[in-house]
Amino acid sequence: MSTHDDAHEEDRPDPSIPSGANVLTAIEVRATDAADLTELLLALRAAGADVVTINSFPATKKGEDDEITRVFDIELRDLGPVEALAAAETVPGVYSAGARPTLGQVFGKRVIVIGGGAQVAQVALGAVSESDRHNLRGERISVDTMALVGEAEIAAAVRAVADLPRAHILVLAGSLMGGEITRAVRELRQLGMPVVALSMAGSVSAEADLVVSDPVQAGTMAVMAIADTARFDLAKLRGRRY
Amino acid sequence: MSTHDDAHEEDRPDPSIPSGANVLTAIEVRATDAADLTELLLALRAAGADVVTINSFPATKKGEDDEITRVFDIELRDLGPVEALAAAETVPGVYSAGARPTLGQVFGKRVIVIGGGAQVAQVALGAVSESDRHNLRGERISVDTMALVGEAEIAAAVRAVADLPRAHILVLAGSLMGGEITRAVRELRQLGMPVVALSMAGSVSAEADLVVSDPVQAGTMAVMAIADTARFDLAKLRGRRY
Repeated sequence: MSTHDDAHEEDRPDPSIPSGANVLTAIEVRATDAADLTELLLALRAAGADVVTINSFPATKKGEDDEITRVFDIELRDLGPVEALAAAETVPGVYSAGARPTLGQVFGKRVIVIGGGAQVAQVALGAVSESDRHNLRGERISVDTMALVGEAEIAAAVRAVADLPRAHILVLAGSLMGGEITRAVRELRQLGMPVVALSMAGSVSAEADLVVSDPVQAGTMAVMAIADTARFDLAKLRGRRY
Repeated sequence: MSTHDDAHEEDRPDPSIPSGANVLTAIEVRATDAADLTELLLALRAAGADVVTINSFPATKKGEDDEITRVFDIELRDLGPVEALAAAETVPGVYSAGARPTLGQVFGKRVIVIGGGAQVAQVALGAVSESDRHNLRGERISVDTMALVGEAEIAAAVRAVADLPRAHILVLAGSLMGGEITRAVRELRQLGMPVVALSMAGSVSAEADLVVSDPVQAGTMAVMAIADTARFDLAKLRGRRY
């Protein structure tokens, strides 16, 4: 059962990018082939919900009714869980609906680390250790990494960070990055995403908000930059090198 | 611009949980307040699309028309990008629509590591290094971590892994886990998600698919277990301890 009604989780703020919402609610709907996602959304909208996120995947739970073929995870605002579940259950094909914490409440803000394996691992070491300290004091920061090779591949991943839910900062961990990667960093920063880069060859570091030589410190600083529990203002350090 | 038409990315398979799709397409729609998500979905459905994922967030791009207030990232199947964009552009309030690689094509399968900071960092070190080796050979595996303290908090995170898009395996990195965490692991495995645990105090390791003493090796094995480029069959090792 994914119907976790852990009061502690429910009370947490959700740092999803669509912030400033009135009520942020998440429901999980288990459905048969007869269920239609658009009808489900129409029912939720009619009840007053603003749907923020939907994920749909095949039902794989063992021992469950064979007719249940699909799961819809829906995050919405402006409507509480009781009303949202009631609305979902009116839709034909919906087998069960349960409330759950939003992914933002559980996994919080995301630090994204992209680059070469050896350096990504060291940045992650710093970022995970630092996030642990902030999470102990009430923050929720997770550290997500992608080890990649190649200018086109890394540039595409940098651009895709703009589409990653709850991504709050990017760390580029490599030894040589430029060209298309630098253009991708410029675009990402234009969207409001801060970028930390290791001190490295290539033009990318000139485009970053902050350049750090030690990968462990780069990870630590990236977490400090997005933690509400830290006194660290990236705006004051813009363009600096450490 | 998020309209990356990198042919290399477009051609990649998408390991999203809803697999076996005919065509997996992703579009980004930038819209004014007049746009309605449900209308957008109705237009896509009318064109033949099966919508898999939607993320909605506020537009923050600098220098863009002030009227653009919202971005919808939509992943769908059974419809190509040209047809999907044409359908999206018929909806009132849609300002621009562009094709992009799906998040699955860029970030691939996800290894999720949850537990205490020191051990999460060591598991990440192993998993990132091993994923680097597989990604060089055509895989796409990313490593995502969450440092947490407390039985209720960790149990909620374990349960939430079921809802994380593209999560393929969970590694529990701690020194003592049991009680509610063990129940959460049982539920998660019932949903078909494999779980690797460090050798630790508490009942959780009895519930895991595989128990590994060395955190670096635990991360390495977790990646091997989900890599198509590895010869490692978790089913053959179920219940073993290393």
